[in-house]
Amino acid sequence: MNVLVLITEEHPDGVVVDADAPHFSPLDQGIHRGDGIFESALLRGGRVRKLDRHLWRLARSAGLVHMDIPGPEQWQTAVERAVEAWDGEATPDDFEGEALIKLMAMRGYGPENPEGHAWVQLTPLARTWRHDGPIRVSLLDRGFDSLAPQRGEWLLVGAKTLSYGINMAAVREAKSRGDHDVIFLTTDGVVLEAPTSTVIVKKGRTLHTTPTEVGVLPGTTQMALYDAAPAHGWDVQYTKLTPQDLFEADAVWLSSSGRLLSQVGWIDGKQLSLDNVAHAELSEILDQNT
Amino acid sequence: MNVLVLITEEHPDGVVVDADAPHFSPLDQGIHRGDGIFESALLRGGRVRKLDRHLWRLARSAGLVHMDIPGPEQWQTAVERAVEAWDGEATPDDFEGEALIKLMAMRGYGPENPEGHAWVQLTPLARTWRHDGPIRVSLLDRGFDSLAPQRGEWLLVGAKTLSYGINMAAVREAKSRGDHDVIFLTTDGVVLEAPTSTVIVKKGRTLHTTPTEVGVLPGTTQMALYDAAPAHGWDVQYTKLTPQDLFEADAVWLSSSGRLLSQVGWIDGKQLSLDNVAHAELSEILDQNT
Repeated sequence: MNVLVLITEEHPDGVVVDADAPHFSPLDQGIHRGDGIFESALLRGGRVRKLDRHLWRLARSAGLVHMDIPGPEQWQTAVERAVEAWDGEATPDDFEGEALIKLMAMRGYGPENPEGHAWVQLTPLARTWRHDGPIRVSLLDRGFDSLAPQRGEWLLVGAKTLSYGINMAAVREAKSRGDHDVIFLTTDGVVLEAPTSTVIVKKGRTLHTTPTEVGVLPGTTQMALYDAAPAHGWDVQYTKLTPQDLFEADAVWLSSSGRLLSQVGWIDGKQLSLDNVAHAELSEILDQNT
Repeated sequence: MNVLVLITEEHPDGVVVDADAPHFSPLDQGIHRGDGIFESALLRGGRVRKLDRHLWRLARSAGLVHMDIPGPEQWQTAVERAVEAWDGEATPDDFEGEALIKLMAMRGYGPENPEGHAWVQLTPLARTWRHDGPIRVSLLDRGFDSLAPQRGEWLLVGAKTLSYGINMAAVREAKSRGDHDVIFLTTDGVVLEAPTSTVIVKKGRTLHTTPTEVGVLPGTTQMALYDAAPAHGWDVQYTKLTPQDLFEADAVWLSSSGRLLSQVGWIDGKQLSLDNVAHAELSEILDQNT
């Protein structure tokens, strides 16, 4: 059961509507052009995790695509309405009370709807959704070099937009190779990110991740971990990582709001070092601090 | 007045529906991921121009994103229904009987709707829509190099997808500079295309355009012109053009189904050579052969 909350002029704080009914026109520019933005937050243990970070990044994406979106308080109320409206009933296939909450906004059609649409969608997570154990990853070329983001804001490299076609195509490519996911590289060989997650590397008691200026989204899960881990004896750094760094690391994770920390076991079929102790420790730090 | 025709399981040849009513769920993957494809054809002088070429390219895009879409006969019938349903009434602001016809398909939500949506949309064209006279263009970096398309199908360089976010952002950038449109360059300085059109250059009686392997969509308007122009004494070539070629050309056009041939008068504020005689001749050849 999905819950859908639309933020409209009439209902600026959101109104729960029938999630199975149509609500959008096929004429919307958001649909025609993938011209919109989104965030995916996690409802877990009765709390929507790090909503403040998601609202910060949503506003950042809106700025990059020059869209007016509702203010943080409106989104917050709309998210609360979605959570309240969910019966929270866990079916045998669901995690206990875990759900993905998407905050979305896109351009509408024509002058009569310049503000477009804004909505919140709650989707209960099935147990099978979060992969148990290390995952297999393909290294794929992302087409641009590590200086591209500095050459033009219009490349939207740091915006989380609805134009995710390349990300979806890359995941299809990985699956056709028998892998679960993708790590993207720049044409000059810098490790970027995964289609829907951030790359984190462990060497000793130091964590490394790609700096955003190279062309990755700021990862809200990675940022939460970086804020909390130093108090537990971890050093955290932003580093231009190469594939060599991945193969020589103690452990590599993909971090995202929904999947949390997912350890990478193989890259292009080559086995990586695993660190299950660090995995458990960092997962706990993350859970306590989001 | 827009006309909307949905192609559904129940109506495989399309059914005219209320264009002002909502028809799509905010949960659709096509919306969440810009995971879909489209074509824009022109209805002019009572004929839908070069629909065969659009259907060819739509099928090509579908292959690149691994989507099942309706067959050509279904699209054809759906387009006919849209044209028949339009009253064709020209308001003072419309071209006489001219309309843009979009053929669109996107992924739906979840296992119960794996085929997604397919639809045809007819939008009457306002007189102000097609710019009269030479246009101003910004040269913008497209982020990838001219070999990128050969490195991975997942970059979707030759697919006409709904993930048009970068194209829209580039046009916004051009408008903020006082220009009408954009010509994209690869990072290694090859002329690509415009966000919604193809670049055509004239030198003597020879036309040049960028070869698709460099990373452009095959232009249906450019292809129609290239097929027809040799019978009128034109030589046509696929050339890796540089900005220098644009500045030294007799004339430069952006070609697209809706706008037809649009002569470029300025690039980054620098005036280009114009050839209004060739513009009239090529426009006529195009009109007669589509």
